[in-house]
Amino acid sequence: MNAAIRAVVRKGVYHGLEVMGVYRGYHGLIRGDLKPLSLGSVGDIIHRGGTMLYTARSEEFKTEEGQEKAVKTLREHGVEGLVVIGGDGSFRGAMKLTERGIPTVGVPGTIDNDIPGTDFTIGFDTAINTVIQAIDKIRDTATSHERTYVVEVMGRDAGDIALWAGLADGAESILIPEAPYDLDEVVERLKRGNKRGKKHSIILVAEGVASGVEVGEEIRRRTGWETRVTVLGHIQRGGSPTAFDRVLASRMGAAAVDLILEGKSNQMVAIRNNQICGIPFEEAFKQKHRLDLSMYQLAGILAI
Amino acid sequence: MNAAIRAVVRKGVYHGLEVMGVYRGYHGLIRGDLKPLSLGSVGDIIHRGGTMLYTARSEEFKTEEGQEKAVKTLREHGVEGLVVIGGDGSFRGAMKLTERGIPTVGVPGTIDNDIPGTDFTIGFDTAINTVIQAIDKIRDTATSHERTYVVEVMGRDAGDIALWAGLADGAESILIPEAPYDLDEVVERLKRGNKRGKKHSIILVAEGVASGVEVGEEIRRRTGWETRVTVLGHIQRGGSPTAFDRVLASRMGAAAVDLILEGKSNQMVAIRNNQICGIPFEEAFKQKHRLDLSMYQLAGILAI
Amino acid sequence: MNAAIRAVVRKGVYHGLEVMGVYRGYHGLIRGDLKPLSLGSVGDIIHRGGTMLYTARSEEFKTEEGQEKAVKTLREHGVEGLVVIGGDGSFRGAMKLTERGIPTVGVPGTIDNDIPGTDFTIGFDTAINTVIQAIDKIRDTATSHERTYVVEVMGRDAGDIALWAGLADGAESILIPEAPYDLDEVVERLKRGNKRGKKHSIILVAEGVASGVEVGEEIRRRTGWETRVTVLGHIQRGGSPTAFDRVLASRMGAAAVDLILEGKSNQMVAIRNNQICGIPFEEAFKQKHRLDLSMYQLAGILAI
Amino acid sequence: MNAAIRAVVRKGVYHGLEVMGVYRGYHGLIRGDLKPLSLGSVGDIIHRGGTMLYTARSEEFKTEEGQEKAVKTLREHGVEGLVVIGGDGSFRGAMKLTERGIPTVGVPGTIDNDIPGTDFTIGFDTAINTVIQAIDKIRDTATSHERTYVVEVMGRDAGDIALWAGLADGAESILIPEAPYDLDEVVERLKRGNKRGKKHSIILVAEGVASGVEVGEEIRRRTGWETRVTVLGHIQRGGSPTAFDRVLASRMGAAAVDLILEGKSNQMVAIRNNQICGIPFEEAFKQKHRLDLSMYQLAGILAI
Repeated sequence: MNAAIRAVVRKGVYHGLEVMGVYRGYHGLIRGDLKPLSLGSVGDIIHRGGTMLYTARSEEFKTEEGQEKAVKTLREHGVEGLVVIGGDGSFRGAMKLTERGIPTVGVPGTIDNDIPGTDFTIGFDTAINTVIQAIDKIRDTATSHERTYVVEVMGRDAGDIALWAGLADGAESILIPEAPYDLDEVVERLKRGNKRGKKHSIILVAEGVASGVEVGEEIRRRTGWETRVTVLGHIQRGGSPTAFDRVLASRMGAAAVDLILEGKSNQMVAIRNNQICGIPFEEAFKQKHRLDLSMYQLAGILAI
Repeated sequence: MNAAIRAVVRKGVYHGLEVMGVYRGYHGLIRGDLKPLSLGSVGDIIHRGGTMLYTARSEEFKTEEGQEKAVKTLREHGVEGLVVIGGDGSFRGAMKLTERGIPTVGVPGTIDNDIPGTDFTIGFDTAINTVIQAIDKIRDTATSHERTYVVEVMGRDAGDIALWAGLADGAESILIPEAPYDLDEVVERLKRGNKRGKKHSIILVAEGVASGVEVGEEIRRRTGWETRVTVLGHIQRGGSPTAFDRVLASRMGAAAVDLILEGKSNQMVAIRNNQICGIPFEEAFKQKHRLDLSMYQLAGILAI
Repeated sequence: MNAAIRAVVRKGVYHGLEVMGVYRGYHGLIRGDLKPLSLGSVGDIIHRGGTMLYTARSEEFKTEEGQEKAVKTLREHGVEGLVVIGGDGSFRGAMKLTERGIPTVGVPGTIDNDIPGTDFTIGFDTAINTVIQAIDKIRDTATSHERTYVVEVMGRDAGDIALWAGLADGAESILIPEAPYDLDEVVERLKRGNKRGKKHSIILVAEGVASGVEVGEEIRRRTGWETRVTVLGHIQRGGSPTAFDRVLASRMGAAAVDLILEGKSNQMVAIRNNQICGIPFEEAFKQKHRLDLSMYQLAGILAI
Repeated sequence: MNAAIRAVVRKGVYHGLEVMGVYRGYHGLIRGDLKPLSLGSVGDIIHRGGTMLYTARSEEFKTEEGQEKAVKTLREHGVEGLVVIGGDGSFRGAMKLTERGIPTVGVPGTIDNDIPGTDFTIGFDTAINTVIQAIDKIRDTATSHERTYVVEVMGRDAGDIALWAGLADGAESILIPEAPYDLDEVVERLKRGNKRGKKHSIILVAEGVASGVEVGEEIRRRTGWETRVTVLGHIQRGGSPTAFDRVLASRMGAAAVDLILEGKSNQMVAIRNNQICGIPFEEAFKQKHRLDLSMYQLAGILAI
């Protein structure tokens, strides 16, 4: 996120704009929590996880009154365009502001990679690297008696983190919301691997599918093997961003400023087929985020 | 562990010994799973987590018959001294072998740091660094609504991991087996911190005290705040060892060979007051492992 | 690389093929250094840097005799198709074998990202993450007297590593072979940043442009400021691969097997516009690798 | 450093003290750059590299006038005791202030581990872990033609970083200021290792002994082998501190406050034989920092 903020500020200043930062999202917008951001104010943040502008949920912004207040704040500060970094919910909020006359451009930032219309979101690459580094450590302790490791990762509606991390780490089974799963088959795979002499097996579970603890219990019950559970939780949200994420965020942040300068509004910056582009929010939301099921099949083949 | 194996082999060869590796611990000893280890066989392993000799539990070794078989294996291979790398259980096994005439020396290797008689065990420093790196990532995502993070770490009987990691990461509360805890007080601290404007709080729980998931539920119930749980699990057992662990393992492995050459037996290598030394198993086991409670108090003071 | 080897083996076995590994590249091919690779032989390698098949240069393979010997080895082992993982040189070797009747498919593996015809090569993402983690550490030590840090990175003919890492890390100046540079301008930028209160500046130099040590000397001479030099060297070639690289390698390795099964030859697997595809070696070599100069300009804008 | 600052502030506030931070060391002290530090001001810094108080050199403080100005600042702010975090030079400055009536306590913070009187300094453990992680990456790229890697690390007068990192990483040769070295012997070792089938060799050079680039050149000249050089530079000064360093800094910072409260002055906090204690500056400076040469010999034995 910080890399995107830095890009918006510096690209904006480069083009002679005055840039302000809204602290704590729509919550801060309603309260007038805006401050000018200079070139120097975004120095030395590109490598920091999290966001220098903080985040907060806002129930009030979901109401008409809240939205009016936000617009009022923006008008009072003479804001001529708003860049919103976030996910689905943030963009739906942005559409509300556009309806009320504020030009908005969205930058997709969420670790779940679940925003339709863009191949990647900012934060996803960092999250999957965090997950695989955790699993790599589990791989190191191959002991003959502790065979099965269940790792629960984020992903309420989207299995992207589980799928990418699972493919990247050779997980034996990957449970994602987008594909039906059958614990019998998972157990079958475990037993087959065990027969072939595999020293350990890793099962990746997206939180939207099941709780890691429960999956662990069930496998233990069915196999009689010791099963160890790891729940990664909010570790996946933090950490210094990867190079891919910093570059993506820098390019997307700069593209958002370009869109604003071109007079575009109600659009989201996206990366599609390795090209940065802008697409209308409405077009994005017409689609559903789709994960690449061929990668899911590949993961199954490679973890025979 | 690998660094200790490497040290034993190379120090041994340096002194003209022939060194063999026992694969899969006492289980392998019973089955005769021994192989000569040359200088080259322990090359390029110092930076690898886990152990090149694998580990396994052995129920059979707990019986007299099992121990006899192990001794037989050792005699058949002409083994004149055995270095055992492991924890309490492994050392008690070693004592049984000594009773049967096999000189043994122990090297304390366990991430829990729970072996009496030594200030540090091999693997502990790596484990706490894994834990703090995980918590550092959680720190990055300070959001105003998700205030409380519960992290469950290893430590069934010893709170060393929780205490060191908690002190190193400024955890608001640390729950360890060695100190009574009171959830009311934990909640009190949380509320106090919240009032002072703390953006987030971290509670570290040693698995021997309570389940992280349960502590999380309970705090949510008492505060009404969102509480996020991370269960680190076997991540803590793996990973490339830290410099401290590699140096400690190298020194301890070499010291074990020295003890064997000096004709010592039934001893454990230890580090005490920053000095490597040998102490009789029996002396070690007479003590109880004690964690430094002044550090626990300090952690409380520094996380006001 | 290991992830690609694993993918080739497991995808091949999945389709009923017998897969052999050639150790030490063309050098090993000439010497007949081939071994069958089973499913298990590529277990637990996906997270390891380097390659389990080792690499070696071969002067002999550049001769007709060498190539004949390699073909003879392949025929003797009944090899019906060869997957070559490597860079330009390896692919030119593959073309020689194809001329002699051996079907070949290339998988682009080089940290420099300098292979024409593919947007990314295996290893590049890992290398740039290594570089930015190094630079992040330098960023932490902002002292008022040690202002300028010069970091030399790999890239003899291609500036991709310097450009991506520089954009990802907010380097003040990036010297790459693809763009003319002017030390006067670099110094100008340093002085401007200094006036604006910047605490430190980072200059990234691709080795193909100049030696980091010399650039450091020159800047010290022209500014009178202390200048610190880091030469990352072969650190950039190693390390556990990133998620992106493991997934790319898995997909490319599997695609190579698909191409072989489809009867294709003299082709290279590539990723273009986020799609995995096969392109003839000749088509690839007709082009020149081009780095995205718009990213270079963006880096300049964002590091004002 | 930040962990030590946090400990001084929070331990101080816990005991009812008012704590101020001096920005930019003696330079800031002369200029009156002091600010009160509250509990919250040191929140969320324990995991950050560098120091939130910045550092600067001060030529002026070396003069009597400068020292007088510093004392004046302290008196004006009613400062009753000063904690100085730093190295030799900083402590000699502290002694000057004590002569002028300001009670001072030192906390040893320098990555070089070269302060006499303490077994470890804050920052050393982080630095050696940075070094070994770099070397681990080099280890991964074992190629048959690029045999010798020279890594230059910090250490102008003290070889602690080179020695610990070299022992931890199995370096074939370690060149430190405390031991004479003979390039012939280094080359002899290389050739012996090569004969034994070693795939690569690592030579660690402390900057105080020689330049890595020159050592690399010389080895290339004498062996005819390709030699690759890495100069780690200021990477070693940064990075998120290790658990050991954070715990050491927390304990030392707290101990400094205890010493102040006990009315001690002109003392340095030290860790000796794993115990935190206070020793007079003068006693510390009477000794010379000594590195453990038995570890140097051990490194030689283990890297046969």
